[in-house]
Amino acid sequence: MSSTATVVTHLQSLLEGSTSERTALATSVLPALLDSIAAVASALKAAHHVALAGGTNAFGDDQLNVDVIAENLIRESLARCRTVATASSEEDPIERSVSSVSASSPETYTVAFDPLDGSSIIAPNWTVGTIAGVWDGATAIGSKPADAQIVSVLGVYGPRTTALVALRVPGTRAVCIDLGYTDTTKTWEIVHPEVKLATESRTKYFAPANIRAAAEFPSYNNLISHYITTKYTLRYCGGLVPDLVHILTKKHGIYLSPVTATSKAKLRRLYELCPVGLVLECVGGKAVDPVTGVSVLEMPLADTDERGGLVCGTAEEVDKAMDWLSGRAGN
Amino acid sequence: MSSTATVVTHLQSLLEGSTSERTALATSVLPALLDSIAAVASALKAAHHVALAGGTNAFGDDQLNVDVIAENLIRESLARCRTVATASSEEDPIERSVSSVSASSPETYTVAFDPLDGSSIIAPNWTVGTIAGVWDGATAIGSKPADAQIVSVLGVYGPRTTALVALRVPGTRAVCIDLGYTDTTKTWEIVHPEVKLATESRTKYFAPANIRAAAEFPSYNNLISHYITTKYTLRYCGGLVPDLVHILTKKHGIYLSPVTATSKAKLRRLYELCPVGLVLECVGGKAVDPVTGVSVLEMPLADTDERGGLVCGTAEEVDKAMDWLSGRAGN
Repeated sequence: MSSTATVVTHLQSLLEGSTSERTALATSVLPALLDSIAAVASALKAAHHVALAGGTNAFGDDQLNVDVIAENLIRESLARCRTVATASSEEDPIERSVSSVSASSPETYTVAFDPLDGSSIIAPNWTVGTIAGVWDGATAIGSKPADAQIVSVLGVYGPRTTALVALRVPGTRAVCIDLGYTDTTKTWEIVHPEVKLATESRTKYFAPANIRAAAEFPSYNNLISHYITTKYTLRYCGGLVPDLVHILTKKHGIYLSPVTATSKAKLRRLYELCPVGLVLECVGGKAVDPVTGVSVLEMPLADTDERGGLVCGTAEEVDKAMDWLSGRAGN
Repeated sequence: MSSTATVVTHLQSLLEGSTSERTALATSVLPALLDSIAAVASALKAAHHVALAGGTNAFGDDQLNVDVIAENLIRESLARCRTVATASSEEDPIERSVSSVSASSPETYTVAFDPLDGSSIIAPNWTVGTIAGVWDGATAIGSKPADAQIVSVLGVYGPRTTALVALRVPGTRAVCIDLGYTDTTKTWEIVHPEVKLATESRTKYFAPANIRAAAEFPSYNNLISHYITTKYTLRYCGGLVPDLVHILTKKHGIYLSPVTATSKAKLRRLYELCPVGLVLECVGGKAVDPVTGVSVLEMPLADTDERGGLVCGTAEEVDKAMDWLSGRAGN
């Protein structure tokens, strides 16, 4: 086990007071996810020949050799967890059995993950990430994410290997911690014990995803013009994990991925929107559906293939962006 | 020496036919730069506590602890080269003596480098880079970069450690090679023996730097609108090295950093514009000054502190962007 004892002890202390048993979550499930992130980082480092694996995944995306490697490393790691009943991923979006958890077990989880988010920026060697959500129970389908998804983990593969762990477990305080991995010692350490967005920011950042949608969506186009004329700083790498981590590190920002008639919803609720939503709510931000304006965690999950748009970041920036996108402002 | 014999042998073969002696360039100077890139990558991996070093550099930028570490690692590596007379850097922009190269030496170089470009995106763990140019002679000042700067090296620190080496040595064919480093074996390998931009591209990319300048520069604002309405894909991380590497990997793209009255030229000619310009010209692209439209390598270098704007990427995209920025199109 490469996860450091210090991190596990800290996770246990954060979970004290939980209304139900969470020992396996802190000592087995989260360490397994952190171990697999370290393993994926190590595999990526040597993957100089990024190539198509020859197929497409269930969503029609081209599959890269590194997608397949990451998928396998995470599944192997989860297979060691006796409380993970099922797991599903963006590469294989079916909740498949992992362990036979007995009906009397005080803890039973399903893990939903996107093994390597940001395929298009892997070849140019830009930062990419892993996204994972841990849900209470043996299935996520039919649950309300705001209640059932209790933990989310973002692995960040850049010059360093880092991870954000957001916990919102009934009976405990919601929190997001920032961890760093050192491969020479094979240990994770706590870099920031609590990540929080700021209420004020000298520099304002915007990340307009799917900017091509602005060509046929005047409200989005007007909002982008508004950011430019009011001198927001543009940072948009096109990877959901690094774009989100930028907001968390700068403590300010707005990420927009609106949906139009011709530019369909692309982000997966189970593998992308729900874990990202939990992180943002734990740091004091918001993550809402651009059509309804409601938290992406509110609506029950209908199936593993559900998709949506996303407006997330600093709470007041999300509110302002929704005013523009809905036509209440600036048009 | 961590640089692989294969890479050195390849560099020697590329330099065959040179009008003057280049043995030290292939076997000492370039290996030293590649070694230092590997060392910087290793230092960054463990740098979880990115912090201000407490000072500012000669350009008034805040200096980070990792900037100082990278600067020292590169200088230590260069100190082993008997043909490098002087070196200067963005952190210490004075051509300081490195080795006493005798007047009869067939090779004498000065190296100009930006040890860690992209300070603002180091904390969020985004890809950053090192930029270095190798110039014939003991000083770059007064030379015409197009003639005197014969090699440029970009180190890329992301999930992998990679490097681009562009060579334009009199008597040889201009070429840009893509290298990858594997830390478990401490070796560099050739990933792509020749990087070239494409003449046609299905997806078109744009990277608008300094987008706040568009607020007071209608031509720039109009050009950005043009990219949006004609459905270019936005990729802009705000690091010159990763933004450039994105263009080279996708074989298409345009990077814009215009200059306005209130938004001054920020990029350093010696440490940023000249090395980037050489890479782009070696891959069949262009890198021009946004005011004059002339190659950034054309005008003799007046001093180490000269700055400018930049429009670079696919040749026809550069021409089109200059038409818009100069008011010849779209206004």
